Amino acid sequence: MTMIWMAKLRAGGMNYSTPTDIAEDPMTLLAVENSDIVAAAKRLNGELFSTRLIESPALNDKYGGRVLFKPECLQRTGSFKFRGAYNRISQMTADERKRGIVAFSSGNHAQGVASSAQLFGIKAVIIMPFDAPQLKIANTKSYGAEVVLYDRYKESREAIASVYINDRGMILVPPYDDPAIIAGQGTIGLELVDEAEERGIEFDDVYVPSGGGGLISGISVAVKARSPKTRIWGAEPENFDDLRRSLIAGTQIANEPGHHSICDAILTPQPGDLTFPINRQNLAGGIAVSDKAVAAAMRDAATFLKVVVEPGGCVALAAIANRQTDLAGKTVAVVLSGGNVDLAIYSGLIAAA
Amino acid sequence: MTMIWMAKLRAGGMNYSTPTDIAEDPMTLLAVENSDIVAAAKRLNGELFSTRLIESPALNDKYGGRVLFKPECLQRTGSFKFRGAYNRISQMTADERKRGIVAFSSGNHAQGVASSAQLFGIKAVIIMPFDAPQLKIANTKSYGAEVVLYDRYKESREAIASVYINDRGMILVPPYDDPAIIAGQGTIGLELVDEAEERGIEFDDVYVPSGGGGLISGISVAVKARSPKTRIWGAEPENFDDLRRSLIAGTQIANEPGHHSICDAILTPQPGDLTFPINRQNLAGGIAVSDKAVAAAMRDAATFLKVVVEPGGCVALAAIANRQTDLAGKTVAVVLSGGNVDLAIYSGLIAAA
Repeated sequence: MTMIWMAKLRAGGMNYSTPTDIAEDPMTLLAVENSDIVAAAKRLNGELFSTRLIESPALNDKYGGRVLFKPECLQRTGSFKFRGAYNRISQMTADERKRGIVAFSSGNHAQGVASSAQLFGIKAVIIMPFDAPQLKIANTKSYGAEVVLYDRYKESREAIASVYINDRGMILVPPYDDPAIIAGQGTIGLELVDEAEERGIEFDDVYVPSGGGGLISGISVAVKARSPKTRIWGAEPENFDDLRRSLIAGTQIANEPGHHSICDAILTPQPGDLTFPINRQNLAGGIAVSDKAVAAAMRDAATFLKVVVEPGGCVALAAIANRQTDLAGKTVAVVLSGGNVDLAIYSGLIAAA
Repeated sequence: MTMIWMAKLRAGGMNYSTPTDIAEDPMTLLAVENSDIVAAAKRLNGELFSTRLIESPALNDKYGGRVLFKPECLQRTGSFKFRGAYNRISQMTADERKRGIVAFSSGNHAQGVASSAQLFGIKAVIIMPFDAPQLKIANTKSYGAEVVLYDRYKESREAIASVYINDRGMILVPPYDDPAIIAGQGTIGLELVDEAEERGIEFDDVYVPSGGGGLISGISVAVKARSPKTRIWGAEPENFDDLRRSLIAGTQIANEPGHHSICDAILTPQPGDLTFPINRQNLAGGIAVSDKAVAAAMRDAATFLKVVVEPGGCVALAAIANRQTDLAGKTVAVVLSGGNVDLAIYSGLIAAA
């Protein structure tokens, strides 16, 4: 099943089937299976930084349940995005590697792709909005990638990318709607259930940030395969809660334009064509959180867990903080998905009480 | 050898031999051996949070060598101090446990003792300066300890402690000059050499913050036992570089009074009577760093490693940043010893460029 999608993606670039096609075609209902994630974990073996679960007794008291945090802010490149990018690029043919890769991203996927390309010695062009966090742009360049900046309000990143894809024959590495990307991010789910077994616990709930849904869909496949009773919840910024509303509607719904959020990493227009069918099957629901709740969650992460989490990486922590009565007697996992934030912004957010 | 010191400590409280006595008595030259640290690791097994080494390719580029960080800010209670306190308290007799424990500390030892006492169900009284970081006071109380605040400029903490020790029969848990405390902190050294072996590397140098010297002396014993060529360096704030100057002089030298530093956790008056003989034998030297260098190091830790490190916990990172030409071609370890810092202070330090 994965190979069908891989072939489609390679042939068609970003021109996927419509959601309706996917929903009505049982053969393509799920682009990723647990075996794909197990295979991804083998490819990533030795390349990942350790992100074992962290916990704070004081936070457990504060939230009224046992909360174990997956600190992907400590992952190579400062976010989970390295997992999917590396898994995707490691499967490229020698010819594809010669042609080089192109990606567009506001920053975390950019760094994951650039770092993976550097490890494989592949040329990478990354198309980033000029107003992306400075740290994300600087880090992407530091991995040796060519960064092309564009104006996200006036220019089309797809049009810019098409020059590299169509004219120069470079390979697009999509940020989430790709089975190899989803499977790579899903290795977090494997690690969650592995560590739960090791500790003799089972998660009642797992809370995961969601932009395009690659992270949460991959995690859901891995967790549901071994812990089917565990509920998976998506967390999103207010007004960017396309996943939450799409889950309720049962079909992909786009966000209304014109809104703003501090969560730059996960401001995706609508659920992915590959990720949504998985999420519709596996998720318990979505939770929308305010920027104010996100900033409070970032403060809790710094105060109690001693980790720097970027706004978009902290929405799942914000989600449980807002639903604390639900945690009584429960053991839950919360994914802190990234930590790439400019210190000028970060210090302001954590200073405000 | 350990037992001799334990007996002395139990009998005499803080009245140790003079430095000269220790230096001239070969039987007491080293209060802790590697076997004590191995035994401490067994006692701590299952109680510690994982603090596997973290690394940033970008920081390696910046510093010109390979730097692996031991993030003890992620340790239970937010600093390494839990290790020594737990190791000490776990060896108390049933009678001693009934009597309860007392400790004085500006905050990290306080939390380590309070948390360990809570795990063993022992009453703990912690004597803290009223101007200690608010987070440290609040956390210590959250572990169930009774906190007694005092004015460090007008009152004697020893006099306050003596009420609990002499009148009420409570047991003092010293912050560093105790073989069980040193051995507990030394488990970090064991983990360093274990993880180096696992990764197939050997550390040229290990950089460790030093206040009273319990952490660095314990680490030095464990590291030297298995990797004798590795050099161990102590890092201290400027004007509180008693270890550096004592190592040069070959005898304990106290700091001049009247100075200030942001590194509240490690402003100890002079090297410990048990720790200094170990450090004199094992250390390569000391490095003094300015508050400004410490703040810059805290920014690097947040930007590249995504961890919140308190000022005193970041002096070893500041030390390598100031000596970057020394790192060419080397692999070194840097201990980030704690992360308990008030966010109002922290945000100000990382915001200033």
